[in-house]
Amino acid sequence: MTTDSLPRKPVKRANAISPTRQEDYAEWYQQVIKEADLAENSPVRGCMVIRPWGYGLWENIQQSLDRMFKDTGHQNAYFPLFIPLSFFEKEAEHVEGFAKECAVVTHRRLEAKPGGGLVPAAELEEPLVVRPTSETIIGASFAKWIRSYRDLPVLINQWANVVRWEMRTRLFLRTTEFLWQEGHTAHATADEARAETMRMLDIYEHFAHEYMAIPVIKGEKCSWERFPGAINTYSIEAMMQDRRALQAGTSHFLGQNFARASGIRFQTKEGGEDYAWTTSWGVSTRLIGALIMSHSDDDGLVLPPRLAPRHVVILPIYRNDADRERVLQYCRTLTAELRDRPYGDGRIQVEIDDRDIRGGEKTWYHIKRGVPVRLEIGPRDLDAGVVSVSRRDRPSGERQALPHAEFVARAGEILGEIQRGLFERALTFRDANMREIVDRAVFEEWFQSQDDEKQLRGGFALCPFVDDPAIIDALAALKVTVRCLPLDQQPRAAKCLFTGKSTDRWAIFAKAY
Amino acid sequence: MTTDSLPRKPVKRANAISPTRQEDYAEWYQQVIKEADLAENSPVRGCMVIRPWGYGLWENIQQSLDRMFKDTGHQNAYFPLFIPLSFFEKEAEHVEGFAKECAVVTHRRLEAKPGGGLVPAAELEEPLVVRPTSETIIGASFAKWIRSYRDLPVLINQWANVVRWEMRTRLFLRTTEFLWQEGHTAHATADEARAETMRMLDIYEHFAHEYMAIPVIKGEKCSWERFPGAINTYSIEAMMQDRRALQAGTSHFLGQNFARASGIRFQTKEGGEDYAWTTSWGVSTRLIGALIMSHSDDDGLVLPPRLAPRHVVILPIYRNDADRERVLQYCRTLTAELRDRPYGDGRIQVEIDDRDIRGGEKTWYHIKRGVPVRLEIGPRDLDAGVVSVSRRDRPSGERQALPHAEFVARAGEILGEIQRGLFERALTFRDANMREIVDRAVFEEWFQSQDDEKQLRGGFALCPFVDDPAIIDALAALKVTVRCLPLDQQPRAAKCLFTGKSTDRWAIFAKAY
Repeated sequence: MTTDSLPRKPVKRANAISPTRQEDYAEWYQQVIKEADLAENSPVRGCMVIRPWGYGLWENIQQSLDRMFKDTGHQNAYFPLFIPLSFFEKEAEHVEGFAKECAVVTHRRLEAKPGGGLVPAAELEEPLVVRPTSETIIGASFAKWIRSYRDLPVLINQWANVVRWEMRTRLFLRTTEFLWQEGHTAHATADEARAETMRMLDIYEHFAHEYMAIPVIKGEKCSWERFPGAINTYSIEAMMQDRRALQAGTSHFLGQNFARASGIRFQTKEGGEDYAWTTSWGVSTRLIGALIMSHSDDDGLVLPPRLAPRHVVILPIYRNDADRERVLQYCRTLTAELRDRPYGDGRIQVEIDDRDIRGGEKTWYHIKRGVPVRLEIGPRDLDAGVVSVSRRDRPSGERQALPHAEFVARAGEILGEIQRGLFERALTFRDANMREIVDRAVFEEWFQSQDDEKQLRGGFALCPFVDDPAIIDALAALKVTVRCLPLDQQPRAAKCLFTGKSTDRWAIFAKAY
Repeated sequence: MTTDSLPRKPVKRANAISPTRQEDYAEWYQQVIKEADLAENSPVRGCMVIRPWGYGLWENIQQSLDRMFKDTGHQNAYFPLFIPLSFFEKEAEHVEGFAKECAVVTHRRLEAKPGGGLVPAAELEEPLVVRPTSETIIGASFAKWIRSYRDLPVLINQWANVVRWEMRTRLFLRTTEFLWQEGHTAHATADEARAETMRMLDIYEHFAHEYMAIPVIKGEKCSWERFPGAINTYSIEAMMQDRRALQAGTSHFLGQNFARASGIRFQTKEGGEDYAWTTSWGVSTRLIGALIMSHSDDDGLVLPPRLAPRHVVILPIYRNDADRERVLQYCRTLTAELRDRPYGDGRIQVEIDDRDIRGGEKTWYHIKRGVPVRLEIGPRDLDAGVVSVSRRDRPSGERQALPHAEFVARAGEILGEIQRGLFERALTFRDANMREIVDRAVFEEWFQSQDDEKQLRGGFALCPFVDDPAIIDALAALKVTVRCLPLDQQPRAAKCLFTGKSTDRWAIFAKAY
């Protein structure tokens, strides 16, 4: 395989994303989304429109996770969007955690008002909360379904929209309405529920590593970062390119708290009665934000092939009608050959872009959308029996000429290389920006240096940790949060940087989304 | 193939659905749903819980339709759940059509009230309507996306939940919240938009016939049954077993009404400016109600194999541990063989039910859930190399012994036979209960005889029709509605039964869901 020397114009940098990551990371993020047609703000405060290219990503995320959920015995179901206020109130910590961000339905019709326009009418006897999460409403069904230990475990998942009224929103990362899956399970014993909690966390890790190409750290959340009402909350934490942390998925061991609140009782094997042990776990469209910020570059979106809606785009090049037909015919044959090739859980997804727009514009269109492989095919390529291959994980001007048959045979392998390469790059970046810190002054210097949002400094700090809410204020002053206590750690005695107390547990600290 | 004579106990009728269709059709419907674990009422007025077996049906409906939508160039996207009141008001007929059944969000948090409990707080400046349909909010995006004829057509579909506050609800048929898909497209010309409207109606017809095994009549709705704001509404209409009509899908030609309301303007090829021509079309979880009422019998649910979550269930039979291992091993081999066989758009879905419950109970469990084929396998079957096959479309006691290899080879064919058989049976039933009526007295007698809900009489009447709202009251008195003007009709001169005016167009009249 040799680097191409076809005399084609280099790809112009003027078309890249502005600003660059270095110049203004937050604005770069917005521009990547805009230029890739992933999503946009809607006229409804805090709600986004997910455009087809962004929704295609979500469909691939859904399909991949759904398969893993079903392979581990879970079934999908659907529960009401609305939760009666009285249900929501049943678990005290839970309602406290969500009360401040609930959309509330209070009326069931609109009526003309004098002078024109409409006003809400027919007030409901009991207000309805638009679900921010469904523990309480699903708990009501579980209480009906579960009578005996023979009915357990119940392993349910729901794909749904949820609403949490956020004051500061950002596309994909934090929106008032978002799409997610929420798993809800009930078990006869605490051990089984704990095992389920960890199994789903493992699935999220597997998905992040193998599909998203994002290295994550599995760990337990500290007490003040727990899901409201949970006994333990576990998460996977990823490092974005600005070295901030992003929580990419959570899995909760709920103990018997929600079972008690919803009355999920069952007859035990021994003939007694007990409350069920429940779990819940979820990931959301936030994953798309993680994807964007992990891999994309100053040219725009970069997609891991396992989740890309399109793997290969073919760009036919011709100057006259005679060439046009010849080239297009060749492209169609190539498309059919590629579509026959397995990749990931399906086949290679190929598209010919034959729109009548300038070549540079067209090339940039696909660069910015993160299509993993672009093929340019003109009359000379056809005569030489080669395809000109550009990979999204390589600099935008780089091309390689490959014999047609070799490319077809190796396309899946190339996609696999890109997938692994993205993961390796993200892992190298994370490891280079994570350090152990055991000294308060070093800790503060490490995070203060990150204060200027436009400077990419700081990262993850692994420090001795004592779970004491007294340290929250000191962390808040530094705008630092406790991400998780990594599960993969050996006890090592040290002193907490904030309380000075001895501990043998360590936690990841970071600025976060 | 011979009818089995294995000396097994007949299936007891005592386990069937009570009441029968004849005794009480409406209650029979509820009981079929309950016994098949399809869905249940939730604590939220008018909202249902879709249980895994019912949701599995919806997933299959989604996958099949989604493939057809994508094959015809449509892309999925997602738009906000909430619609600002000001958007909703833009199309006058539209808002009038939906104002009476809107859930309205007026507050964005909950606050503790003195004496305990929570109340809605932080009132919104502008109330938000929970979408009953998304023309207006999607129109706002289209207005941004579409600038030139080059941007057209825009072909979008959304899978989503919608809310219409219904006072009288019934599982699947009419619920306050339901799941659906809504297609929304914009075109440069009226002709293209009309062609799209009909293309999607054709897809719905194809889906009803080939997947749901339900014969439908394609037609245009009369003026007072149109979607609020549409120029023309088309539907597919099916006959249920109580001879009532059920509208199973609609496709609307919206003209430029919504484009004008939302400002969807574009530069034409000729350099002028015009409003886009739009369409919308949808089917919902109501289809599951249609499925239940078309095919099910007094034993419970009957599922067309193309949509059944499981095609074959294997029921191992044994009396001791030695037999158990031998029989289960045989069942596992059979399962693997069957799972390798193509059927429909995928492979044969098989499950072994090895739960430790009585054989009769287990058999009825699967009869009531409508699994197309049941296989009973005991030590004698194993020794004889046969499987005992029961088909859900045959009487519940009927079994056939088939050689193992023959069944594996023919399983897909048997499923195909069941699928076609259900369609043929439903078609025969509909045709037997549809007649042309040109006389008012005959018309009244035909529909009055259906007045007793427990009597299965009446059906579809094809009558000369003049689109005059003056006839609404006369029809309402008979509880009869105009279903549609079938597209497949030749002009035939006759007199309208109600206005006495001459016409050459005919319409289907029926009582309806």
